This record gives sequence, structure tokens and C-alpha cells, in this order.
Amino acid sequence: MKTIALVPLLACIFIFTAIFPLLDSLQSAPVASTKAAVQAILDDQQAAWNRGDINTFMKGYWNSPDLTFAGTSGITRGWEPVMARYRKHYPDQAAMGHLDFSEIEIRPLGNDAALVLGRWHLKRADDSPGGVFTLVFQRFPDGWRIIHDHTSVDAKP
Amino acid sequence: MKTIALVPLLACIFIFTAIFPLLDSLQSAPVASTKAAVQAILDDQQAAWNRGDINTFMKGYWNSPDLTFAGTSGITRGWEPVMARYRKHYPDQAAMGHLDFSEIEIRPLGNDAALVLGRWHLKRADDSPGGVFTLVFQRFPDGWRIIHDHTSVDAKP
Repeated sequence: MKTIALVPLLACIFIFTAIFPLLDSLQSAPVASTKAAVQAILDDQQAAWNRGDINTFMKGYWNSPDLTFAGTSGITRGWEPVMARYRKHYPDQAAMGHLDFSEIEIRPLGNDAALVLGRWHLKRADDSPGGVFTLVFQRFPDGWRIIHDHTSVDAKP
Repeated sequence: MKTIALVPLLACIFIFTAIFPLLDSLQSAPVASTKAAVQAILDDQQAAWNRGDINTFMKGYWNSPDLTFAGTSGITRGWEPVMARYRKHYPDQAAMGHLDFSEIEIRPLGNDAALVLGRWHLKRADDSPGGVFTLVFQRFPDGWRIIHDHTSVDAKP
């Protein structure tokens, strides 16, 4: 009888051992750490842009053919085409100007994604365009990356 | 000895009973059901728009002061102001025209959120504007709702 009673107990312990790592992987990432990680990417992007370094700026984006960038010219798909678009529109440091982000709002969506809204503003010799952006970030094993960017330019008043 | 062996077994069963409902609430919503639920909201919105019914169209949006709508005029915040914006830009059924969504792409973000990209197109007597949109959906106890909309109008070619 003693041996028979031990069988379900051992089965029970075995299943527990299998379930705890699963529970652990499902638990909430703290909101504060999500916000800090996403803000750090945006800070790095802004700094890279302002030294004319598009390669480093692009590290904030998911390096995938499924990266998407939406705007008034439709949807650009893939990391390489998104970089090519930036290089075309901003061929040199004069065109890149000085970038500022403001009114950044980071809203976690579950543990592994976040919605980010904000304003961008470029100061250049001859103009100072600006507008709003929507970013969707996803958490990957090597960190948070932008998986989708929708950027608008403010309408002329 | 038989009684002693039963104590951890009963404790184990008790804890299991407590954990299973938790696991159930954490388990993945099937991707297919997320896509179907989100697509149904978009279909309802399109149908409501095309009979000039902005009230029903607005039911796709999260009824909250935290709803956001981004575009070339910046960010509109709150369900009431978003509805007021629609009513101002589309005062009657002629201005509303006939709406079509196309190239809809639904990307689940965890269990309770989804990123949606697509194109919109309006057919009206005098023009036919169109563009791309980014929607972020969130799952609430009463269903999926748009918590953020970023809509662009295609640049004139």
C-alpha cells in the first residue's frame, strides 16, 4: 500500500517540476523595465541620427523582411528597404539635421510588446519639419526592437 | 506511515486545483480566433460607415479618454474627440462616400493585443482619397477594441 500511495505523489511532483519553468516564463515583465528598455533604444536612435550614423540608428529596428514602415508613400517592407528609404530621403548630415523626440508615451502590450507614441522634430538650415509617430516594439531574446513604424509629417498650418 | 504519505499527496492535489485555472487564464488565445475577432470588427466598421452610421462605426474603438488617433494633425485623445473629428471631416453621407479596406494584415502581439495594417479607400462623387492605417487592438472582457489608430493619406503622385 505504501508503494502505491507514492506513485501519484511522485507523478504530482514530476508534473510540478515541468510546470514551474512555464509559469515563470509567463509571468509579467515589470512595466518600468519595459519602459526603460524602450526609452534606451529611442535615446540611442536619436544620438546616432544626430551624428549622421544611420547604421546605428537602424539597430533600433527589427532586422527582418517583416519589418514594416508606413507613411504617405504606403508601406515599406523589410529592414533593407527601410534603410534604403532613410538613405534616399536623408542623403547627408545636412538633410538629416538635428533630431528631437518629444512627448514620448510608452504603453506596454502584454509582456513582449509595447506601443509607443511621440513627436519628432528636425532642425535643418532651411526648414524644420515635424510630426507624430507610432512605433510597435517587440521583445526578442536579444532585446527590444521596433517591428512597425508609422510616421506622419504635420500638415502645413 | 500510510497517513503520513497521504498528507503531501493531498497538499499537492490542493495546489494543483488552485493552479490550473491560473494556467488556463494565461494560455494562448489561438491566433486564428484573434484574427477572426479583429476582422469581424473591421467588417462591422466598414458596413456601418457605408450606411452613414458613425455611431456604430465608433463601436470598434475603445470607449476611453485614453483612445488615441494620430495623423497629420497630431494626436487626438479620447473617444468623444475622435468621434467629433470624424463628424467634422465627414459631415454627411456624401462626404463619407463608400469605404473599402484592403490588404488587411493582422499580427497578434501576445494574447491580448494585435497590430493591424491595411489600406483604406474612399469613393466619392468628386474624389477618391486613400492611404494606409495602423491599428492597435486590445482584448477587453467585452471583446476586441481599437486603442490606437494612425491613419495616413497617400501623397499626391
